[in-house]
Amino acid sequence: MTTVLDMFGAHPGGPGKSGALTADEVARCVEECVACQTACTICADSCLAEPDVAALRQCIREDLDCADICGATARVLARRTAFVPFVAAALVRACAAACASCAEECASHTGMTHCEQCAQACHRCERACQDVLEKLLPQ
Amino acid sequence: MTTVLDMFGAHPGGPGKSGALTADEVARCVEECVACQTACTICADSCLAEPDVAALRQCIREDLDCADICGATARVLARRTAFVPFVAAALVRACAAACASCAEECASHTGMTHCEQCAQACHRCERACQDVLEKLLPQ
Amino acid sequence: MTTVLDMFGAHPGGPGKSGALTADEVARCVEECVACQTACTICADSCLAEPDVAALRQCIREDLDCADICGATARVLARRTAFVPFVAAALVRACAAACASCAEECASHTGMTHCEQCAQACHRCERACQDVLEKLLPQ
Amino acid sequence: MTTVLDMFGAHPGGPGKSGALTADEVARCVEECVACQTACTICADSCLAEPDVAALRQCIREDLDCADICGATARVLARRTAFVPFVAAALVRACAAACASCAEECASHTGMTHCEQCAQACHRCERACQDVLEKLLPQ
Repeated sequence: MTTVLDMFGAHPGGPGKSGALTADEVARCVEECVACQTACTICADSCLAEPDVAALRQCIREDLDCADICGATARVLARRTAFVPFVAAALVRACAAACASCAEECASHTGMTHCEQCAQACHRCERACQDVLEKLLPQ
Repeated sequence: MTTVLDMFGAHPGGPGKSGALTADEVARCVEECVACQTACTICADSCLAEPDVAALRQCIREDLDCADICGATARVLARRTAFVPFVAAALVRACAAACASCAEECASHTGMTHCEQCAQACHRCERACQDVLEKLLPQ
Repeated sequence: MTTVLDMFGAHPGGPGKSGALTADEVARCVEECVACQTACTICADSCLAEPDVAALRQCIREDLDCADICGATARVLARRTAFVPFVAAALVRACAAACASCAEECASHTGMTHCEQCAQACHRCERACQDVLEKLLPQ
Repeated sequence: MTTVLDMFGAHPGGPGKSGALTADEVARCVEECVACQTACTICADSCLAEPDVAALRQCIREDLDCADICGATARVLARRTAFVPFVAAALVRACAAACASCAEECASHTGMTHCEQCAQACHRCERACQDVLEKLLPQ
Protein backbone atom coordinates (compact mmCIF):
# COMPACT_ATOMS: atom_id res chain seq x y z
CA MET A 1 0.00 0.00 0.00
CA THR A 2 1.18 3.52 -0.76
CA THR A 3 2.44 5.23 2.38
CA VAL A 4 2.08 8.82 3.51
CA LEU A 5 5.79 9.25 2.84
CA ASP A 6 5.36 7.95 -0.73
CA MET A 7 2.66 10.53 -1.28
CA PHE A 8 4.71 13.34 0.25
CA GLY A 9 7.42 12.41 -2.29
CA ALA A 10 4.97 13.11 -5.12
CA HIS A 11 3.91 16.51 -3.74
CA PRO A 12 4.69 19.28 -6.24
CA GLY A 13 6.12 21.37 -3.44
CA GLY A 14 8.65 18.63 -2.86
CA PRO A 15 9.26 16.53 0.20
CA GLY A 16 10.46 19.26 2.57
CA LYS A 17 7.76 21.83 3.20
CA SER A 18 7.31 22.16 6.97
CA GLY A 19 10.21 24.25 8.24
CA ALA A 20 12.89 22.21 10.04
CA LEU A 21 10.66 19.13 9.93
CA THR A 22 11.61 16.40 7.50
CA ALA A 23 8.91 14.73 5.41
CA ASP A 24 9.76 11.50 7.21
CA GLU A 25 8.97 12.94 10.63
CA VAL A 26 5.70 14.48 9.50
CA ALA A 27 4.67 11.28 7.69
CA ARG A 28 5.32 9.18 10.78
CA CYS A 29 3.20 11.52 12.90
CA VAL A 30 0.35 11.41 10.37
CA GLU A 31 0.45 7.59 10.39
CA GLU A 32 0.46 7.44 14.20
CA CYS A 33 -2.41 9.95 14.47
CA VAL A 34 -4.48 7.92 12.02
CA ALA A 35 -3.72 4.65 13.84
CA CYS A 36 -4.50 6.23 17.21
CA GLN A 37 -7.80 7.66 15.98
CA THR A 38 -8.88 4.19 14.88
CA ALA A 39 -7.65 2.51 18.07
CA CYS A 40 -9.50 5.03 20.24
CA THR A 41 -12.71 4.63 18.22
CA ILE A 42 -12.60 0.85 18.64
CA CYS A 43 -11.63 1.08 22.33
CA ALA A 44 -14.59 3.39 23.06
CA ASP A 45 -16.90 0.92 21.32
CA SER A 46 -15.35 -2.05 23.14
CA CYS A 47 -15.76 -0.28 26.50
CA LEU A 48 -19.41 0.37 25.60
CA ALA A 49 -19.89 -3.39 25.16
CA GLU A 50 -18.23 -4.30 28.47
CA PRO A 51 -20.52 -5.68 31.20
CA ASP A 52 -19.31 -2.95 33.57
CA VAL A 53 -19.67 -0.04 31.17
CA ALA A 54 -20.62 2.26 34.07
CA ALA A 55 -17.03 2.01 35.36
CA LEU A 56 -15.64 3.00 31.97
CA ARG A 57 -17.25 6.42 31.48
CA GLN A 58 -13.95 8.27 31.84
CA CYS A 59 -12.27 5.92 29.36
CA ILE A 60 -15.02 6.24 26.75
CA ARG A 61 -14.95 10.02 26.99
CA GLU A 62 -11.16 10.22 26.68
CA ASP A 63 -11.22 7.78 23.75
CA LEU A 64 -13.78 9.90 21.89
CA ASP A 65 -11.86 13.13 22.51
CA CYS A 66 -8.55 11.56 21.53
CA ALA A 67 -10.05 10.14 18.32
CA ASP A 68 -11.39 13.55 17.31
CA ILE A 69 -8.14 15.39 18.09
CA CYS A 70 -5.96 12.77 16.36
CA GLY A 71 -8.22 12.95 13.31
CA ALA A 72 -7.87 16.72 13.02
CA THR A 73 -4.11 16.55 13.63
CA ALA A 74 -3.63 13.92 10.91
CA ARG A 75 -5.40 16.13 8.38
CA VAL A 76 -3.56 19.31 9.30
CA LEU A 77 -0.15 17.60 9.16
CA ALA A 78 -1.06 15.84 5.91
CA ARG A 79 -1.29 19.27 4.26
CA ARG A 80 2.08 20.60 3.09
CA THR A 81 0.94 23.61 1.06
CA ALA A 82 1.18 26.97 2.86
CA PHE A 83 1.99 25.33 6.20
CA VAL A 84 1.40 27.54 9.26
CA PRO A 85 3.88 26.43 11.96
CA PHE A 86 2.28 28.07 15.01
CA VAL A 87 -1.16 26.63 14.29
CA ALA A 88 0.29 23.17 13.65
CA ALA A 89 2.40 23.36 16.81
CA ALA A 90 -0.58 24.29 18.99
CA LEU A 91 -2.63 21.44 17.57
CA VAL A 92 0.16 18.88 17.87
CA ARG A 93 0.62 19.95 21.49
CA ALA A 94 -3.10 19.37 22.12
CA CYS A 95 -2.82 15.99 20.42
CA ALA A 96 0.12 14.98 22.63
CA ALA A 97 -1.88 16.03 25.70
CA ALA A 98 -4.94 14.03 24.64
CA CYS A 99 -2.82 10.96 23.88
CA ALA A 100 -0.98 11.17 27.21
CA SER A 101 -4.22 11.49 29.15
CA CYS A 102 -6.00 8.71 27.25
CA ALA A 103 -2.96 6.41 27.52
CA GLU A 104 -2.87 6.88 31.29
CA GLU A 105 -6.58 6.14 31.64
CA CYS A 106 -6.43 3.07 29.36
CA ALA A 107 -3.27 1.73 31.00
CA SER A 108 -5.04 1.74 34.37
CA HIS A 109 -7.45 -0.97 33.15
CA THR A 110 -5.13 -3.94 33.50
CA GLY A 111 -6.39 -7.11 31.92
CA MET A 112 -8.62 -5.30 29.44
CA THR A 113 -6.88 -6.05 26.15
CA HIS A 114 -8.54 -3.33 24.05
CA CYS A 115 -7.43 -0.73 26.59
CA GLU A 116 -3.86 -2.08 26.52
CA GLN A 117 -3.85 -1.93 22.71
CA CYS A 118 -5.26 1.58 22.79
CA ALA A 119 -2.72 2.74 25.40
CA GLN A 120 0.09 1.53 23.12
CA ALA A 121 -1.32 3.43 20.14
CA CYS A 122 -1.67 6.56 22.29
CA HIS A 123 1.91 6.26 23.58
CA ARG A 124 3.27 5.89 20.04
CA CYS A 125 1.25 8.87 18.84
CA GLU A 126 2.29 11.01 21.79
CA ARG A 127 5.97 10.27 21.05
CA ALA A 128 5.54 11.12 17.35
CA CYS A 129 3.84 14.40 18.35
CA GLN A 130 6.67 15.24 20.78
CA ASP A 131 9.23 14.62 18.01
CA VAL A 132 7.36 16.96 15.70
CA LEU A 133 7.09 19.61 18.40
CA GLU A 134 10.84 19.58 19.06
CA LYS A 135 11.50 20.41 15.42
CA LEU A 136 8.64 22.88 15.07
CA LEU A 137 9.65 24.83 18.16
CA PRO A 138 13.46 24.73 18.36
CA GLN A 139 14.87 26.30 21.50
CA MET B 1 -34.60 24.95 17.28
CA THR B 2 -33.13 23.42 20.44
CA THR B 3 -29.88 25.14 21.39
CA VAL B 4 -26.69 23.67 22.82
CA LEU B 5 -27.55 25.39 26.09
CA ASP B 6 -31.01 23.75 26.13
CA MET B 7 -29.32 20.39 25.73
CA PHE B 8 -26.75 21.10 28.42
CA GLY B 9 -29.68 21.84 30.74
CA ALA B 10 -30.99 18.29 30.17
CA HIS B 11 -27.63 16.64 30.88
CA PRO B 12 -27.90 14.27 33.84
CA GLY B 13 -24.68 15.68 35.25
CA GLY B 14 -26.41 19.04 35.43
CA PRO B 15 -25.52 22.27 33.71
CA GLY B 16 -22.20 22.99 35.45
CA LYS B 17 -19.64 20.30 34.68
CA SER B 18 -16.52 22.00 33.34
CA GLY B 19 -14.70 23.46 36.33
CA ALA B 20 -15.08 27.24 36.62
CA LEU B 21 -16.74 27.39 33.22
CA THR B 22 -20.47 28.01 33.13
CA ALA B 23 -22.66 26.00 30.79
CA ASP B 24 -23.49 29.23 29.02
CA GLU B 25 -19.85 29.96 28.17
CA VAL B 26 -19.19 26.44 26.92
CA ALA B 27 -22.39 26.42 24.89
CA ARG B 28 -21.50 29.69 23.21
CA CYS B 29 -18.07 28.35 22.28
CA VAL B 30 -19.59 25.16 20.84
CA GLU B 31 -22.00 27.23 18.72
CA GLU B 32 -19.22 29.50 17.45
CA CYS B 33 -16.95 26.54 16.62
CA VAL B 34 -19.74 24.89 14.66
CA ALA B 35 -20.55 28.10 12.79
CA CYS B 36 -16.87 28.73 12.06
CA GLN B 37 -16.35 25.17 10.76
CA THR B 38 -19.21 25.69 8.31
CA ALA B 39 -18.05 29.17 7.27
CA CYS B 40 -14.50 27.92 6.63
CA THR B 41 -15.75 24.94 4.61
CA ILE B 42 -17.84 27.23 2.40
CA CYS B 43 -15.06 29.83 2.11
CA ALA B 44 -12.56 27.16 0.97
CA ASP B 45 -15.05 26.01 -1.66
CA SER B 46 -15.81 29.57 -2.75
CA CYS B 47 -12.08 30.31 -3.09
CA LEU B 48 -11.75 27.16 -5.20
CA ALA B 49 -14.38 28.56 -7.59
CA GLU B 50 -12.72 31.99 -7.90
CA PRO B 51 -11.14 32.82 -11.27
CA ASP B 52 -7.83 33.53 -9.54
CA VAL B 53 -7.74 30.40 -7.40
CA ALA B 54 -3.94 30.26 -7.68
CA ALA B 55 -3.72 33.41 -5.53
CA LEU B 56 -5.89 31.84 -2.84
CA ARG B 57 -3.83 28.75 -1.93
CA GLN B 58 -2.92 30.09 1.51
CA CYS B 59 -6.56 30.95 2.20
CA ILE B 60 -7.89 27.54 1.13
CA ARG B 61 -5.34 25.74 3.27
CA GLU B 62 -6.06 27.86 6.35
CA ASP B 63 -9.82 27.41 5.82
CA LEU B 64 -9.45 23.63 5.68
CA ASP B 65 -7.27 23.50 8.79
CA CYS B 66 -9.55 25.86 10.71
CA ALA B 67 -12.63 23.82 9.77
CA ASP B 68 -11.02 20.61 11.02
CA ILE B 69 -9.80 22.15 14.29
CA CYS B 70 -13.12 23.91 14.97
CA GLY B 71 -14.95 20.63 14.33
CA ALA B 72 -12.84 18.72 16.84
CA THR B 73 -13.11 21.53 19.40
CA ALA B 74 -16.91 21.65 19.09
CA ARG B 75 -17.13 17.93 19.81
CA VAL B 76 -14.73 17.95 22.76
CA LEU B 77 -16.49 20.94 24.39
CA ALA B 78 -19.92 19.41 23.72
CA ARG B 79 -18.97 16.53 26.02
CA ARG B 80 -19.57 17.29 29.68
CA THR B 81 -19.00 13.84 31.20
CA ALA B 82 -15.56 13.26 32.74
CA PHE B 83 -14.22 16.54 31.37
CA VAL B 84 -10.39 16.77 31.22
CA PRO B 85 -9.47 20.47 31.63
CA PHE B 86 -5.84 20.36 30.41
CA VAL B 87 -6.75 18.52 27.19
CA ALA B 88 -9.65 20.87 26.51
CA ALA B 89 -7.49 23.92 27.23
CA ALA B 90 -4.75 22.80 24.82
CA LEU B 91 -7.29 22.18 22.08
CA VAL B 92 -9.15 25.45 22.64
CA ARG B 93 -5.80 27.27 22.46
CA ALA B 94 -5.09 25.56 19.11
CA CYS B 95 -8.55 26.55 17.92
CA ALA B 96 -8.00 30.18 18.88
CA ALA B 97 -4.68 30.13 17.00
CA ALA B 98 -6.24 28.63 13.87
CA CYS B 99 -9.11 31.12 13.95
CA ALA B 100 -6.76 34.08 14.44
CA SER B 101 -4.55 33.00 11.55
CA CYS B 102 -7.45 32.24 9.21
CA ALA B 103 -9.19 35.51 10.11
CA GLU B 104 -6.07 37.49 9.27
CA GLU B 105 -5.66 35.73 5.93
CA CYS B 106 -9.34 36.11 5.00
CA ALA B 107 -9.47 39.74 6.11
CA SER B 108 -6.62 40.55 3.72
CA HIS B 109 -8.86 39.75 0.73
CA THR B 110 -10.85 42.97 0.66
CA GLY B 111 -13.84 42.93 -1.64
CA MET B 112 -14.22 39.16 -1.51
CA THR B 113 -17.47 38.74 0.41
CA HIS B 114 -17.07 35.07 1.38
CA CYS B 115 -13.69 35.88 2.92
CA GLU B 116 -15.19 38.80 4.86
CA GLN B 117 -17.97 36.55 6.15
CA CYS B 118 -15.47 33.87 7.08
CA ALA B 119 -13.17 36.35 8.84
CA GLN B 120 -16.13 37.45 10.99
CA ALA B 121 -16.95 33.87 11.94
CA CYS B 122 -13.28 33.25 12.81
CA HIS B 123 -13.09 36.41 14.93
CA ARG B 124 -16.23 35.44 16.87
CA CYS B 125 -14.93 31.91 17.41
CA GLU B 126 -11.52 33.14 18.51
CA ARG B 127 -13.14 35.41 21.10
CA ALA B 128 -15.33 32.60 22.42
CA CYS B 129 -12.23 30.39 22.71
CA GLN B 130 -10.35 33.12 24.57
CA ASP B 131 -13.25 33.50 27.01
CA VAL B 132 -13.21 29.75 27.66
CA LEU B 133 -9.44 29.75 28.14
CA GLU B 134 -9.59 32.52 30.75
CA LYS B 135 -11.93 30.41 32.86
CA LEU B 136 -10.14 27.10 32.24
CA LEU B 137 -6.74 28.49 33.15
CA PRO B 138 -7.28 31.07 35.91
CA GLN B 139 -4.16 32.96 36.90
CA MET C 1 -24.76 35.65 12.55
CA THR C 2 -24.07 34.96 8.87
CA THR C 3 -26.12 32.01 7.62
CA VAL C 4 -25.20 29.26 5.20
CA LEU C 5 -27.59 30.86 2.71
CA ASP C 6 -25.81 34.23 3.08
CA MET C 7 -22.54 32.51 2.27
CA PHE C 8 -24.00 30.63 -0.69
CA GLY C 9 -25.08 34.04 -2.03
CA ALA C 10 -21.43 35.17 -2.03
CA HIS C 11 -20.18 32.08 -3.85
CA PRO C 12 -18.52 33.06 -7.15
CA GLY C 13 -20.40 30.25 -8.88
CA GLY C 14 -23.62 31.95 -7.84
CA PRO C 15 -26.41 30.65 -5.68
CA GLY C 16 -27.67 27.86 -7.94
CA LYS C 17 -25.04 25.20 -8.41
CA SER C 18 -26.57 21.84 -7.48
CA GLY C 19 -28.79 20.80 -10.36
CA ALA C 20 -32.49 21.24 -9.65
CA LEU C 21 -31.76 22.04 -6.02
CA THR C 22 -32.15 25.64 -4.93
CA ALA C 23 -29.52 27.22 -2.71
CA ASP C 24 -32.21 27.60 -0.06
CA GLU C 25 -32.93 23.87 0.07
CA VAL C 26 -29.26 22.93 0.27
CA ALA C 27 -28.59 25.57 2.91
CA ARG C 28 -31.43 24.30 5.08
CA CYS C 29 -30.11 20.74 4.85
CA VAL C 30 -26.59 21.88 5.80
CA GLU C 31 -27.98 23.73 8.84
CA GLU C 32 -30.05 20.72 9.94
CA CYS C 33 -27.12 18.32 9.49
CA VAL C 34 -24.91 20.58 11.59
CA ALA C 35 -27.57 20.93 14.31
CA CYS C 36 -28.20 17.18 14.30
CA GLN C 37 -24.49 16.36 14.58
CA THR C 38 -24.26 18.56 17.67
CA ALA C 39 -27.47 17.19 19.19
CA CYS C 40 -26.31 13.60 18.70
CA THR C 41 -22.89 14.34 20.20
CA ILE C 42 -24.48 15.85 23.30
CA CYS C 43 -27.09 13.07 23.55
CA ALA C 44 -24.39 10.37 23.43
CA ASP C 45 -22.52 12.18 26.19
CA SER C 46 -25.69 12.67 28.24
CA CYS C 47 -26.55 8.95 27.89
CA LEU C 48 -23.02 8.13 29.08
CA ALA C 49 -23.67 10.13 32.26
CA GLU C 50 -27.03 8.46 32.98
CA PRO C 51 -27.17 6.13 36.01
CA ASP C 52 -28.44 3.32 33.78
CA VAL C 53 -25.89 3.74 30.99
CA ALA C 54 -25.90 -0.03 30.36
CA ALA C 55 -29.47 0.26 29.02
CA LEU C 56 -28.43 3.01 26.62
CA ARG C 57 -25.75 1.22 24.55
CA GLN C 58 -27.91 1.15 21.41
CA CYS C 59 -28.68 4.85 21.79
CA ILE C 60 -25.04 5.87 22.30
CA ARG C 61 -23.94 3.90 19.26
CA GLU C 62 -26.66 5.34 17.03
CA ASP C 63 -25.90 8.86 18.28
CA LEU C 64 -22.20 8.48 17.44
CA ASP C 65 -22.92 7.09 13.97
CA CYS C 66 -25.52 9.76 13.23
CA ALA C 67 -23.16 12.52 14.34
CA ASP C 68 -20.40 11.26 12.04
CA ILE C 69 -22.72 10.84 9.05
CA CYS C 70 -24.40 14.24 9.56
CA GLY C 71 -20.97 15.85 9.83
CA ALA C 72 -19.80 14.39 6.52
CA THR C 73 -23.11 15.27 4.83
CA ALA C 74 -22.94 18.89 6.01
CA ARG C 75 -19.47 19.27 4.51
CA VAL C 76 -20.31 17.63 1.18
CA LEU C 77 -23.48 19.73 0.74
CA ALA C 78 -21.65 22.89 1.80
CA ARG C 79 -19.42 22.52 -1.26
CA ARG C 80 -20.98 23.96 -4.43
CA THR C 81 -18.01 23.78 -6.79
CA ALA C 82 -17.99 20.79 -9.17
CA PHE C 83 -20.93 19.17 -7.41
CA VAL C 84 -21.34 15.40 -8.08
CA PRO C 85 -25.08 14.61 -7.81
CA PHE C 86 -24.89 10.81 -7.51
CA VAL C 87 -22.32 10.91 -4.71
CA ALA C 88 -24.28 13.58 -2.84
CA ALA C 89 -27.53 11.64 -3.30
CA ALA C 90 -26.05 8.41 -1.92
CA LEU C 91 -24.67 10.24 1.10
CA VAL C 92 -27.88 12.18 1.78
CA ARG C 93 -29.79 8.89 1.61
CA ALA C 94 -27.41 7.38 4.21
CA CYS C 95 -27.89 10.48 6.36
CA ALA C 96 -31.68 10.17 6.17
CA ALA C 97 -31.37 6.49 7.18
CA ALA C 98 -29.11 7.28 10.14
CA CYS C 99 -31.41 10.09 11.31
CA ALA C 100 -34.53 7.92 11.01
CA SER C 101 -32.93 5.09 12.98
CA CYS C 102 -31.50 7.36 15.67
CA ALA C 103 -34.77 9.27 16.00
CA GLU C 104 -36.69 6.03 16.54
CA GLU C 105 -34.23 4.85 19.18
CA CYS C 106 -34.17 8.20 21.00
CA ALA C 107 -37.96 8.60 20.83
CA SER C 108 -38.36 5.27 22.63
CA HIS C 109 -36.77 6.74 25.77
CA THR C 110 -39.78 8.65 27.05
CA GLY C 111 -39.03 11.02 29.90
CA MET C 112 -35.37 11.42 28.98
CA THR C 113 -35.24 15.03 27.81
CA HIS C 114 -31.92 14.86 25.94
CA CYS C 115 -33.25 11.93 23.89
CA GLU C 116 -36.44 13.85 23.09
CA GLN C 117 -34.40 16.86 21.98
CA CYS C 118 -32.14 14.64 19.90
CA ALA C 119 -35.09 12.83 18.30
CA GLN C 120 -36.49 16.20 17.21
CA ALA C 121 -33.18 17.23 15.65
CA CYS C 122 -32.97 13.87 13.85
CA HIS C 123 -36.55 14.20 12.53
CA ARG C 124 -35.87 17.69 11.21
CA CYS C 125 -32.64 16.56 9.56
CA GLU C 126 -34.29 13.49 8.03
CA ARG C 127 -37.00 15.70 6.50
CA ALA C 128 -34.43 18.13 5.08
CA CYS C 129 -32.53 15.18 3.59
CA GLN C 130 -35.71 13.78 2.04
CA ASP C 131 -36.47 17.19 0.49
CA VAL C 132 -32.98 17.30 -1.03
CA LEU C 133 -33.31 13.76 -2.34
CA GLU C 134 -36.59 14.52 -4.12
CA LYS C 135 -34.89 17.28 -6.07
CA LEU C 136 -31.63 15.40 -6.66
CA LEU C 137 -33.39 12.31 -7.96
CA PRO C 138 -36.50 13.49 -9.82
CA GLN C 139 -38.73 10.66 -11.01
CA MET D 1 1.55 -2.06 15.05
CA THR D 2 -1.78 -3.39 16.34
CA THR D 3 -4.23 -3.87 13.49
CA VAL D 4 -7.96 -3.25 13.36
CA LEU D 5 -8.43 -7.02 13.26
CA ASP D 6 -6.32 -7.46 16.42
CA MET D 7 -8.56 -4.94 18.16
CA PHE D 8 -11.75 -6.59 16.91
CA GLY D 9 -10.44 -9.82 18.47
CA ALA D 10 -10.32 -8.10 21.86
CA HIS D 11 -13.87 -6.73 21.61
CA PRO D 12 -16.03 -8.09 24.45
CA GLY D 13 -18.81 -8.82 21.99
CA GLY D 14 -16.42 -11.14 20.20
CA PRO D 15 -15.12 -10.99 16.65
CA GLY D 16 -18.38 -11.61 14.81
CA LYS D 17 -20.87 -8.83 15.43
CA SER D 18 -22.01 -7.50 12.05
CA GLY D 19 -24.50 -10.03 10.67
CA ALA D 20 -23.08 -12.20 7.90
CA LEU D 21 -19.95 -10.07 7.77
CA THR D 22 -16.78 -11.57 9.20
CA ALA D 23 -14.53 -9.46 11.39
CA ASP D 24 -11.84 -9.84 8.74
CA GLU D 25 -13.99 -8.28 6.02
CA VAL D 26 -15.03 -5.36 8.21
CA ALA D 27 -11.46 -4.79 9.39
CA ARG D 28 -10.16 -4.69 5.84
CA CYS D 29 -12.80 -2.13 4.86
CA VAL D 30 -11.95 0.05 7.88
CA GLU D 31 -8.25 -0.05 6.95
CA GLU D 32 -8.98 0.84 3.31
CA CYS D 33 -11.30 3.69 4.29
CA VAL D 34 -8.67 5.12 6.61
CA ALA D 35 -5.95 4.82 3.94
CA CYS D 36 -8.21 6.37 1.31
CA GLN D 37 -9.15 9.28 3.57
CA THR D 38 -5.45 10.07 4.02
CA ALA D 39 -4.62 9.63 0.34
CA CYS D 40 -7.46 11.94 -0.68
CA THR D 41 -6.43 14.59 1.86
CA ILE D 42 -2.86 14.56 0.54
CA CYS D 43 -3.99 14.51 -3.10
CA ALA D 44 -6.23 17.56 -2.56
CA ASP D 45 -3.30 19.39 -0.98
CA SER D 46 -0.93 18.30 -3.75
CA CYS D 47 -3.39 19.50 -6.41
CA LEU D 48 -3.61 22.83 -4.58
CA ALA D 49 0.18 23.20 -4.93
CA GLU D 50 0.22 22.37 -8.65
CA PRO D 51 1.05 25.22 -11.03
CA ASP D 52 -2.21 24.61 -12.91
CA VAL D 53 -4.47 24.40 -9.87
CA ALA D 54 -7.32 26.00 -11.84
CA ALA D 55 -7.55 22.82 -13.96
CA LEU D 56 -7.82 20.67 -10.83
CA ARG D 57 -10.94 22.12 -9.20
CA GLN D 58 -13.02 19.00 -9.87
CA CYS D 59 -10.26 16.78 -8.46
CA ILE D 60 -9.82 18.84 -5.28
CA ARG D 61 -13.55 18.83 -4.62
CA GLU D 62 -13.89 15.08 -5.15
CA ASP D 63 -10.85 14.44 -2.95
CA LEU D 64 -12.33 16.50 -0.12
CA ASP D 65 -15.72 14.77 -0.38
CA CYS D 66 -14.16 11.32 -0.59
CA ALA D 67 -11.96 12.01 2.46
CA ASP D 68 -14.97 13.09 4.52
CA ILE D 69 -17.11 10.13 3.48
CA CYS D 70 -14.30 7.58 3.99
CA GLY D 71 -13.64 9.06 7.44
CA ALA D 72 -17.26 8.66 8.51
CA THR D 73 -17.44 5.15 7.04
CA ALA D 74 -14.30 4.04 8.87
CA ARG D 75 -15.77 5.18 12.19
CA VAL D 76 -19.18 3.59 11.66
CA LEU D 77 -17.66 0.25 10.59
CA ALA D 78 -15.16 0.36 13.47
CA ARG D 79 -18.09 0.21 15.90
CA ARG D 80 -19.30 -3.35 16.52
CA THR D 81 -21.71 -2.72 19.40
CA ALA D 82 -25.40 -2.52 18.46
CA PHE D 83 -24.62 -2.53 14.74
CA VAL D 84 -27.43 -1.22 12.49
CA PRO D 85 -27.11 -3.01 9.11
CA PHE D 86 -29.32 -0.73 6.99
CA VAL D 87 -27.57 2.43 8.12
CA ALA D 88 -24.13 0.88 7.57
CA ALA D 89 -25.17 -0.43 4.15
CA ALA D 90 -26.40 2.99 2.99
CA LEU D 91 -23.18 4.65 4.14
CA VAL D 92 -20.92 1.99 2.61
CA ARG D 93 -22.81 2.41 -0.68
CA ALA D 94 -22.18 6.18 -0.54
CA CYS D 95 -18.52 5.50 0.19
CA ALA D 96 -18.22 3.17 -2.80
CA ALA D 97 -19.84 5.84 -4.99
CA ALA D 98 -17.47 8.56 -3.75
CA CYS D 99 -14.44 6.32 -4.24
CA ALA D 100 -15.52 5.31 -7.76
CA SER D 101 -16.08 8.92 -8.79
CA CYS D 102 -12.84 10.19 -7.24
CA ALA D 103 -10.84 7.31 -8.73
CA GLU D 104 -12.16 8.10 -12.20
CA GLU D 105 -11.31 11.79 -11.86
CA CYS D 106 -7.82 11.11 -10.47
CA ALA D 107 -7.07 8.42 -13.04
CA SER D 108 -7.76 10.94 -15.82
CA HIS D 109 -4.70 12.99 -14.76
CA THR D 110 -2.03 10.82 -16.31
CA GLY D 111 1.49 11.67 -15.29
CA MET D 112 0.43 13.26 -12.01
CA THR D 113 1.81 10.78 -9.47
CA HIS D 114 -0.27 11.91 -6.47
CA CYS D 115 -3.42 11.42 -8.51
CA GLU D 116 -2.31 7.94 -9.57
CA GLN D 117 -1.58 7.02 -5.95
CA CYS D 118 -4.93 8.42 -4.87
CA ALA D 119 -6.79 6.57 -7.65
CA GLN D 120 -5.26 3.30 -6.42
CA ALA D 121 -6.34 3.96 -2.84
CA CYS D 122 -9.86 4.82 -4.06
CA HIS D 123 -10.06 1.64 -6.15
CA ARG D 124 -8.97 -0.53 -3.23
CA CYS D 125 -11.47 1.17 -0.91
CA GLU D 126 -14.28 0.86 -3.43
CA ARG D 127 -13.62 -2.89 -3.75
CA ALA D 128 -13.57 -3.36 0.03
CA CYS D 129 -16.87 -1.47 0.25
CA GLN D 130 -18.41 -3.65 -2.48
CA ASP D 131 -17.31 -6.79 -0.61
CA VAL D 132 -18.95 -5.51 2.57
CA LEU D 133 -22.14 -4.61 0.68
CA GLU D 134 -22.46 -8.10 -0.80
CA LYS D 135 -22.48 -9.59 2.68
CA LEU D 136 -24.65 -6.91 4.25
CA LEU D 137 -27.30 -7.14 1.56
CA PRO D 138 -27.46 -10.81 0.48
CA GLN D 139 -29.76 -11.43 -2.45
